[in-house]
Formats: sequence, structure tokens, C-alpha cells
Amino acid sequence: MHTRNSVLSGCNILGPVTPNSPGPARLPTSMMYCSNCGDQVVERIPAGDSRSRHVCLSCHTVHYQNPKIVAGCIPERDGRLLLCRRAIEPRHGLWTLPAGFMENGESTEQAAARETMEEACARVENLSLYGVFSIPHISQVYMMFRATLANDDFRPGDESLEVRLFDESEIPWDELAFPVMRLTLQRYFSDQQKNVFPLHVEDIIRPPRRQP
Amino acid sequence: MHTRNSVLSGCNILGPVTPNSPGPARLPTSMMYCSNCGDQVVERIPAGDSRSRHVCLSCHTVHYQNPKIVAGCIPERDGRLLLCRRAIEPRHGLWTLPAGFMENGESTEQAAARETMEEACARVENLSLYGVFSIPHISQVYMMFRATLANDDFRPGDESLEVRLFDESEIPWDELAFPVMRLTLQRYFSDQQKNVFPLHVEDIIRPPRRQP
Repeated sequence: MHTRNSVLSGCNILGPVTPNSPGPARLPTSMMYCSNCGDQVVERIPAGDSRSRHVCLSCHTVHYQNPKIVAGCIPERDGRLLLCRRAIEPRHGLWTLPAGFMENGESTEQAAARETMEEACARVENLSLYGVFSIPHISQVYMMFRATLANDDFRPGDESLEVRLFDESEIPWDELAFPVMRLTLQRYFSDQQKNVFPLHVEDIIRPPRRQP
Repeated sequence: MHTRNSVLSGCNILGPVTPNSPGPARLPTSMMYCSNCGDQVVERIPAGDSRSRHVCLSCHTVHYQNPKIVAGCIPERDGRLLLCRRAIEPRHGLWTLPAGFMENGESTEQAAARETMEEACARVENLSLYGVFSIPHISQVYMMFRATLANDDFRPGDESLEVRLFDESEIPWDELAFPVMRLTLQRYFSDQQKNVFPLHVEDIIRPPRRQP
């Protein structure tokens, strides 16, 4: 059983979300050269396909691009949640739940726990999938886990300026880094009042641009 | 609330899973050349990172590789489930639930419904996320949705030889294409007996190789 909304109102999408990238922003980039043979690629629809892909006419490699998973936690301790203040762009100085790109060779839970350790030196236990948020316009799927914070000596990792526990009344709503974090926290505190935490599967749709 | 197992016993992992690829198998490939500038790449750990990446020493692009989402449906009609017999490699001739790689620009639900239409010309309604199965050794995450089959004129799409509805007693257990489909169907029929369908978040771990 889970809730679902296909359009999120009141959610201010500010642009691409690239948490935890240690270097340049990891946006879907346009491909110029074939990573297999080094020749130039073209954009065309391969035989048997229905979408335009980067295709190499020399070695016939089709270079598929697919959405990325961002895995994260909602670490809880005595009714308070752990947030991190970002030390990196984008959204330097703003607050987020610990989350980042899932890596090859790990599970979604491992990714969520690893990111929590990297960003906040925080160990988490009892992970339970709580939110699956698709963001089609940036080709990302957030997978957010409820979790119990297991250590007291959490502290900022390399990508954080500050980490601390927040009561609901203390959440810095006007200084959150990403709309998906606002949504996650809204759902969490709403469910907390009922003490029932169903899975939320929702899409975050970019609002139409205002006419000048 | 969801169930979770970190190791799946009795699940025969036969190799990489590449459903619905219209052309060559879409395995994570080794990168030789920079897709941005065409120069050769090297494998090294970028500054501030902890993992080896393909890095271009000319234009300094770091080429990240991340897990892919495979989205699919468990289409149900009057207690029977829709399966597809594969017309493509790998596992040509074997049966699967409709599923395939999520594309950029869509949500997980849209991907699951699209794949069901492409493989079985079947419309689905009332999608509900049922299984999130990480397969770390092939860097894939399956997201399987329960769904109601909405049309009678389903038929094989280009990637299927045959599509049909199966009672539990008719499921071709020995001719299933992928371990993750066996797991999904096992969980489904077990839950069906209780008429309760919790979310399943599980990992499929490759069993250790037998010593010769």
C-alpha cells in the first residue's frame, strides 16, 4: 500500500539536483565521441528502437543513457532528524538529508547508509524504504529510507559544513537545498502525527515556466 | 513496512540480465575514449573521491557509471498474471514479466507501463510498487509494480514471441528468463494466499562460484 501523486504542487523546482558530486556537476552531458573507438558519434534512432541515441557509425556501438538513483536516509534519534549543511555546490550552505548517487556494485540500502556515513559520519540501522520520488526532467529517482541513528559521534564529512539534529519546529524550511528534501520532510512529519509511515511513490514535475 | 532479505538462497543467478535491449547486450562496458574530447581515458581515483573512475587527462572530465533501473509490471486479470516469452537475447524463448530499462525523462511508473505496452501491447492501471530488488553484481535495481490488466487485445510486441495469462498452477517455473522474475512471482503468490501485498525490498546476491 502506498500513496501516490503525479504532480507536486507548491514545490519549487530550482534546477538540476546533483548532490554529493565531488567534482563538476554530474548532469546528463551531450556525447561527442564514441567511448569505445574514439570516433565521432551521431544522434539517431537505432533499428528496432524508438528513441534517439548517441550511435557510433564506425564501431556501431549504441550509447544508452538512463536515469540515476539518488539514495538517502532520514536518520532519526529521539524524535529528531539529522540534516547536513552542504559544503559543496550546488546549494552550498543549504540543508539536506544525507543522500547521493548510488554506485555500481551496491544495493539501494548500502548506498543510503554509505552516503549517510560519508556526509555526516553517522551510522544508521533499521533502514526502511519510505519514499521513491521520480524527477523526470532531471532523470533522477530518489530512494529515501527511514533509519535509526546509531552513533553519538556524528560530525560533518568532507561534503558538509555542519550536521545536527532537528525537531520538527526547528527544520530550516527556507534553507533546504532541494525540493525533494522538502517533500520528504513534509511527508515524514505528516505521517509522524498518525504514527503510520506508508511508502510514498511520487513524481516531482517541473512547473511550467512563467510567461514574461 | 516492508520485508527485507539481504541474501537470496535458492536463486540461481545465471549471468547478466539485459532485458529489452533491442541491439547488443547492454553490459557495463569498459571505457576507452573520452566522450567529451575523444582522447584516451585512464582509470584513477579523482581528487576528493574514493573510487576508481574513467578520467580524461586532457579535458579533465570524470565519467561516472551508475546502476540502472529496470521497471516492470505484474499485470493481473481475474487472478491470472500476464507473462511474455522473449523473442530476443538473452534468454530467447524463456518467460518473463514485462520489464525493461527505465529511460531518461520518465517516472518509474511510466517506465513500467511503457515496457508492458511495448512487450505485450497491454495497458495497465492501478500500479502499486511491490518489489525493489537490488542486484549489485550487475548494477541493476528492479522496480516491479503490481497492476491491473486493462485491455483484452494484448498480443506479442516486437520483443515477445508469445504473451498469455497464467494461473499460479500454470507458471512455467523451469522456463523463466531471470532469477528476479522467479523471486517476484514467488513473493506474489505467497502474499496472495494472505491477500496482503507488502513492499519487498531485497537484494539478489550472486552465489559464490563452486570450486572445481
